[in-house]
Amino acid sequence: MYNHATADYICPICLSLEGTENQDTLILQSDIVYRDDLVTVIINSFSLGGVIGNAIIVPVKHFENIYDMPDEYGHHVFDLSKRVAIAMKKAYGCDGITTMQCSEPAGDQHAFHYHFHVMQRYDEDRFNEHITHKEVADPKMRAVCAEKLRSNID
Amino acid sequence: MYNHATADYICPICLSLEGTENQDTLILQSDIVYRDDLVTVIINSFSLGGVIGNAIIVPVKHFENIYDMPDEYGHHVFDLSKRVAIAMKKAYGCDGITTMQCSEPAGDQHAFHYHFHVMQRYDEDRFNEHITHKEVADPKMRAVCAEKLRSNID
Repeated sequence: MYNHATADYICPICLSLEGTENQDTLILQSDIVYRDDLVTVIINSFSLGGVIGNAIIVPVKHFENIYDMPDEYGHHVFDLSKRVAIAMKKAYGCDGITTMQCSEPAGDQHAFHYHFHVMQRYDEDRFNEHITHKEVADPKMRAVCAEKLRSNID
Repeated sequence: MYNHATADYICPICLSLEGTENQDTLILQSDIVYRDDLVTVIINSFSLGGVIGNAIIVPVKHFENIYDMPDEYGHHVFDLSKRVAIAMKKAYGCDGITTMQCSEPAGDQHAFHYHFHVMQRYDEDRFNEHITHKEVADPKMRAVCAEKLRSNID
């Protein structure tokens, strides 16, 4: 419903879930924090305002956006968002959490596979100014963040 | 866990769920789109960049933030977010949807009762510039939006 991916769309998230690392996806296997039968938690390839280590939660099956997401998957995204939020508090010592999900290009969706952002926040981090300034984060730093979250997720 | 509301906090969302309209809450009963045993959908008192009619989904019991939210309530918030997103597509003819949830002041939480934002988006709406520019929206216009969503939610 209300889909934008073309028939020949190469999904960067599906590639990563299959274990592929190539030029069609920025995601490395070392970015993966957690996986189960329904969802996978991945460190975002992009930093936000210079802050590395925010996470995305994705369904392991390809659904494009909120309109398409089956309830079973959506419920489990909630479960993991709470667990990741608490893990970020412990692992990063952050001051707050903001979650966000974008559907359709007008909603700021860029990758056409549903992904739910869990972002660590800090006092006076000027997040709203920085949210549009994404930069690819150093893969080694992303791997450090993945390991920190992995060892703190309950 | 990680709570910020003081012991004498007057919760504007709890007041509205009890049917109260007074100076401690901006929410009017005409803002309420939907309610059931677990959650209520309310038109946000604030417009975003001049756009009126974005919604919040709140648990009917008082939980402060994502860390405190029981799974049962979180799952039903997902259910309603999807239904509200589809209702907004029909009612408002919007081009996309962004959802957001803020925990703790550093995460941009202002009312200390968990609330999940569902926001209609439009092509080139400069949302990220406007998100911090909240203005109280005309209650009559909010009521019109509530009625539009009410008649389009499945």
